[in-house]
Amino acid sequence: MEHQDGTFRSYLEEKGGVEKPPVVDPNAVARFKSRKRKQKVLTAKDYVQGIRSGNRTLLSQAITIVESNLQEHYELAQEIITECLPFSGNSIRIGITGVPGAGKSTFIESFGKYITQKKHSLAVLAIDPSSERTKGSILGDKTRMVELSVDENAYIRPSPSAGSLGGVARKTRESIILCEAAGFDVIFVETVGVGQSETAVHSMVDFFLLLMLAGAGDELQGIKRGIMEMADSISITKADGSNIDKAKVARSEYQTALSLFPPHPSGVTQKVTVCSALEKRGLSEIWKIIEEYVSTTKHAGFFEEKRNQQAKYWMYESIHEQLQRNFYSSPKIQKHLAATEQKVIQQQKSSFVAAQELLDIYFQYKEKS
Amino acid sequence: MEHQDGTFRSYLEEKGGVEKPPVVDPNAVARFKSRKRKQKVLTAKDYVQGIRSGNRTLLSQAITIVESNLQEHYELAQEIITECLPFSGNSIRIGITGVPGAGKSTFIESFGKYITQKKHSLAVLAIDPSSERTKGSILGDKTRMVELSVDENAYIRPSPSAGSLGGVARKTRESIILCEAAGFDVIFVETVGVGQSETAVHSMVDFFLLLMLAGAGDELQGIKRGIMEMADSISITKADGSNIDKAKVARSEYQTALSLFPPHPSGVTQKVTVCSALEKRGLSEIWKIIEEYVSTTKHAGFFEEKRNQQAKYWMYESIHEQLQRNFYSSPKIQKHLAATEQKVIQQQKSSFVAAQELLDIYFQYKEKS
Repeated sequence: MEHQDGTFRSYLEEKGGVEKPPVVDPNAVARFKSRKRKQKVLTAKDYVQGIRSGNRTLLSQAITIVESNLQEHYELAQEIITECLPFSGNSIRIGITGVPGAGKSTFIESFGKYITQKKHSLAVLAIDPSSERTKGSILGDKTRMVELSVDENAYIRPSPSAGSLGGVARKTRESIILCEAAGFDVIFVETVGVGQSETAVHSMVDFFLLLMLAGAGDELQGIKRGIMEMADSISITKADGSNIDKAKVARSEYQTALSLFPPHPSGVTQKVTVCSALEKRGLSEIWKIIEEYVSTTKHAGFFEEKRNQQAKYWMYESIHEQLQRNFYSSPKIQKHLAATEQKVIQQQKSSFVAAQELLDIYFQYKEKS
Repeated sequence: MEHQDGTFRSYLEEKGGVEKPPVVDPNAVARFKSRKRKQKVLTAKDYVQGIRSGNRTLLSQAITIVESNLQEHYELAQEIITECLPFSGNSIRIGITGVPGAGKSTFIESFGKYITQKKHSLAVLAIDPSSERTKGSILGDKTRMVELSVDENAYIRPSPSAGSLGGVARKTRESIILCEAAGFDVIFVETVGVGQSETAVHSMVDFFLLLMLAGAGDELQGIKRGIMEMADSISITKADGSNIDKAKVARSEYQTALSLFPPHPSGVTQKVTVCSALEKRGLSEIWKIIEEYVSTTKHAGFFEEKRNQQAKYWMYESIHEQLQRNFYSSPKIQKHLAATEQKVIQQQKSSFVAAQELLDIYFQYKEKS
């Protein structure tokens, strides 16, 4: 059972099946409107041209349109994305998550700098469905990444506004396409390390890096069970000062633990490293692991196959999410759902009979309406 | 990405979203029909009375009706289940899975005997969505469990006929209800240890036991990633003869590995044991772990809460499965799906635009029809 707190809403949210009311940054809308007044209305072609020529302002504006929940932006957004699609795909997409306290921001800053110094251009995106609650702390504050935010080979995009996981994931996945069309050849997708967002990130990146702490104990409380097996590599962070030995012990423990798992679907062994973002050590090892992973899996065909699977996965996920949204937003279902659920819990109805009754109500209503 | 082989069908099957053509045992139907000819047609009340009074023949017949894919059996089945519901719930439901070669049958035979000797009555069910391929090898052959099959305190039910995972899972879950109404106070649900069936079993049992082999290496190939974190306890089997020391090493490795995982949602530490089904050693320890788990989680309210969640889970799973089945069986969707999927893979359409187009087609068609 994935959903722990037992509410119907949390069940749906995990399933990506309910969209919260649109939360739109009023400033963004105002900026967009004032821009429209001041200058000619840009077409999708204008945006794509701007994106392709490296215009960061137009890239940011286009992402804002993609992230917008306004119906008037939807078609423009989809046109921009479709035009960008042929120029997308030429990057290494890296998901980064970690236990709370593992120092994700500091790591992304140091690792990002390491990568841009290697003449790569880097875009940093984020998925944080909880940002409504945390007020967008994730990447919301560029001061967390002082050096990277002024690096001309890096582009940091704050987390999209809150919404259902499905909605946020869609926005991030489409932003990846735009960033790739803009020429970025390495994409980070940061996630908060709790809840279902890892599954979403895992389904849109080529390589998934998990940051752990030595002797984390309590810190593990927050992370999702199963995430270790999802990771393509684990790095024990903060391996500096008096923490080095502890980190090395943790590395060997995690490496042993991983060896007990079933083999990774790529065929590549999941490696565990230690690193210090502060002292900038261990970063080259991680980059080497990623480069080797990409090269091996490209050679074996796994890389492309996984991308194809992901594209299909998101198509089917979207279909299922919308089917469910349509069902649960039906007035007839809203009227009967809670009572039916209670009967199931009180063993007055079997789960399957209850489901069948609700489905009958739904489809009859659909046919009549 | 859960689905590995890339076919649309495998994706759907994992999602439980497609029902294979009904596979009905012709003999069962013939038996049923001849029974109807020979004797008065039994009502749901007759079956429930028989089940409640310990009539094994009527229990088996009722389960056959539940498992039937014939429309004419559906209503009778649901009536029997609804009548049995108030008498269900009073058992410990134990899921048992293991890597190939771990000796599940031998274990179930020995562990089952241990339990019936403790004056419990035991029903053994199975989930094997692959049984179409393996021709129902799982539990199909009662000779695998010679002693248990003649034990008057045990009831072994062969695996239901093949079908989608969702369909098979429904049948097994409903059979649990019938067995509980028949008074069995311990239920085993055996599963094959590959694919998605573990998730289904995990969502219908109170306690999930994973059987592993020492130094399994290659044998791990088949089991699903994530299953170790799903287990409530792990036992290393075949800890006999020259294998004892290896098993003990494995136990300590797995115990360490589990300690690196996030805490179990129940709050109970997952314990790893060794056992020998052959020499009947280690069985009492496993039973003690299960009894303590049940007592602790009942006291904490987790036990009941998990059952409620499971009942809800199956209601929502059934709804989602049927919504998807309705979508994918729509002639309009069948006409467009493959081509749309190809466009997504070839990056001519974004996953989300493709989904939206298919949904528009589906809902327009629904409204017209």
